[in-house]
Amino acid sequence: MIIVGELINASRKTVKSVIENRDHNMLRKLAMDQAVAGADYIDVNAGIFVAEEAECLKWSIENILNATDNPCCIDTPNPSAMETALAFHQEKTDKIPMINSISLEKNRFEPISSIIAGTDFKVVALCVSDDGMPTTAEQRISVADKLINSLVKKNVKLENIYVDPLVQAISTDSIFGMEFLKSVNEIMTRFEGVHTMCGLSNISFGMPERKFLNRTFMAMAIACGLDGAIVDPLDEKMMANIITAEALVGRDDFCTAYLKAFRAGKIQS
Amino acid sequence: MIIVGELINASRKTVKSVIENRDHNMLRKLAMDQAVAGADYIDVNAGIFVAEEAECLKWSIENILNATDNPCCIDTPNPSAMETALAFHQEKTDKIPMINSISLEKNRFEPISSIIAGTDFKVVALCVSDDGMPTTAEQRISVADKLINSLVKKNVKLENIYVDPLVQAISTDSIFGMEFLKSVNEIMTRFEGVHTMCGLSNISFGMPERKFLNRTFMAMAIACGLDGAIVDPLDEKMMANIITAEALVGRDDFCTAYLKAFRAGKIQS
Repeated sequence: MIIVGELINASRKTVKSVIENRDHNMLRKLAMDQAVAGADYIDVNAGIFVAEEAECLKWSIENILNATDNPCCIDTPNPSAMETALAFHQEKTDKIPMINSISLEKNRFEPISSIIAGTDFKVVALCVSDDGMPTTAEQRISVADKLINSLVKKNVKLENIYVDPLVQAISTDSIFGMEFLKSVNEIMTRFEGVHTMCGLSNISFGMPERKFLNRTFMAMAIACGLDGAIVDPLDEKMMANIITAEALVGRDDFCTAYLKAFRAGKIQS
Repeated sequence: MIIVGELINASRKTVKSVIENRDHNMLRKLAMDQAVAGADYIDVNAGIFVAEEAECLKWSIENILNATDNPCCIDTPNPSAMETALAFHQEKTDKIPMINSISLEKNRFEPISSIIAGTDFKVVALCVSDDGMPTTAEQRISVADKLINSLVKKNVKLENIYVDPLVQAISTDSIFGMEFLKSVNEIMTRFEGVHTMCGLSNISFGMPERKFLNRTFMAMAIACGLDGAIVDPLDEKMMANIITAEALVGRDDFCTAYLKAFRAGKIQS
C-alpha cells in the first residue's frame, strides 16, 4: 500500500502560516512525523499562495527532502508551478516524485501529460472529464479507461499510474459508496499493473462520527483492491485499520507488519 | 443483512448448564437480549448432549419462541435431531426457521436435502464436499456451484440459500482472507438472488487482537457482497461495524439505521 501523507497543505491554517513564516523547523517536523508514521510520499500543496505558489512549493520541497528520505507528491493543478517544482525536486534528489494530479479535462490533461510523457514520475489520475464528475461505477470506469489509454500512449507506464475514482458522500446518495468500491474492483481487474488511490474523507461528508466511517470505508476499499491512499498518517486508528486490512487481504507476509504494530501498541480492540 | 445470533450454543459452558438445569429464565433472556440487539434468527445448538440432543433442542426452541418474535436457526449435523426440531418449530409457530447446515458431503447432503426439498426453510450451505475443506476461491466456487444446483433441483429457492464459503485463519496462510473475499464476490455475482453467510471468527485464529481483526474483516466481507452473518449480536463494536458497513454499501436508505445507532451512542470513533 502506498501511503501519501496529506498534512503539508497550505489550505490548513497552521500550514499556511508555517510556509508564510518560512518556519523550516515546523515544516521539517511535519514531514518527518508523517514519514515515521508510515508515509511513502509527502504531499505538498501551496495553491493558496497563488502568484508565489511555485516559490512556496520549492521551499517546502527543499525542507521535506532535507528532513526525510521520502520523495514528494507535488499537488497542484497549475502546470507551470508543477513544472518548476518537479525540476527543483529532480535537481535535489534522484528519488522519483509523484504528481498530484492529472485528469481527462482537456486543459489539465494536455499540459500535465506533456510534462510526464516518457518519464518515470508517478501520477495520480483523477476520474474527471469535461463532462464533469462521474457518479456511477460505469462512468468512472469509462473515464479511467480513456485516461489510462491516453497516458500509456504518452509512454507513461501502467505501474506509475494511480487512478483515483473519486469518492462522493453517502449523505448525498446512498449508492455512492458502492459505486466507488465497484470502480476500484473493476479498474484493478481490468488494467493489470495499474494502481488505485484516493483521499476518502468525502465519503462521510455531512455524517456524524466521520473518522469511524472513513476508516471502515478504507478497509472496505482495500478489500476491493485499493492499493494507495492519501491520508493523515498521524491518525493512528486509520493507520491501524490500513495495516489490519492489508494483513486480511494477504499483502502482509506472515502478518509481520500487523504483529509489529500490535507489539508497538497500535492495534487496539 | 441477516444476523444470526450465535450465543445459544451448548458448547459454551454457561449455556450447557442453562440447558441442563432447564433454566428457562436464563435461556429466554439469552434469546431476548440477542433479538433486542438486532438478531433476525436465534441459533440453537445442543450437539453436546448427544442422545438428548433432540429433547434439548425442543426445550430451547420452545423458550426462544416464547421469549421473542424471532424464528430459530437450528444448528445440528444430525438429520434425525434436525427433523424432530423442525417439526416442533412448525408446530409452535408459522415463522420460517433456518437450517444450519447442509454441505455437499454425501452423508450430509442426502438426508438434509430430503428434509428441506420443496419447503420454504432457509438453509446455510457450507462449501465442503467429500474432497474436504476448500482452500482457494476456485475450489469454493466449484463446491458452491454444485451445492446450489443440487438444492435448486430439490426445489429449494435461490433466495432461501445462504452459502457459507468458510473462513480459514490468515495465520495458517496469508492468502486465506483474500480467497474468502473473492469467493463471496463471485458467488453473489454469479448466482443472482442467492445469499452468503458466515461465522468469521476463524479468520483471526492464532493472532492477537482477534476482535479487531474479526470486525474489520466483517466490513471487508460486506464490501464484497456478504449479506448474512452468524455473530454475537451483544458485541456492540461488531454490530457498529456491520451497521456502518451496510450504510457504506448503500443498504441503509438515508443512513437511517446508522443515524439511529449513532443517536443511541453505539457508533464511537
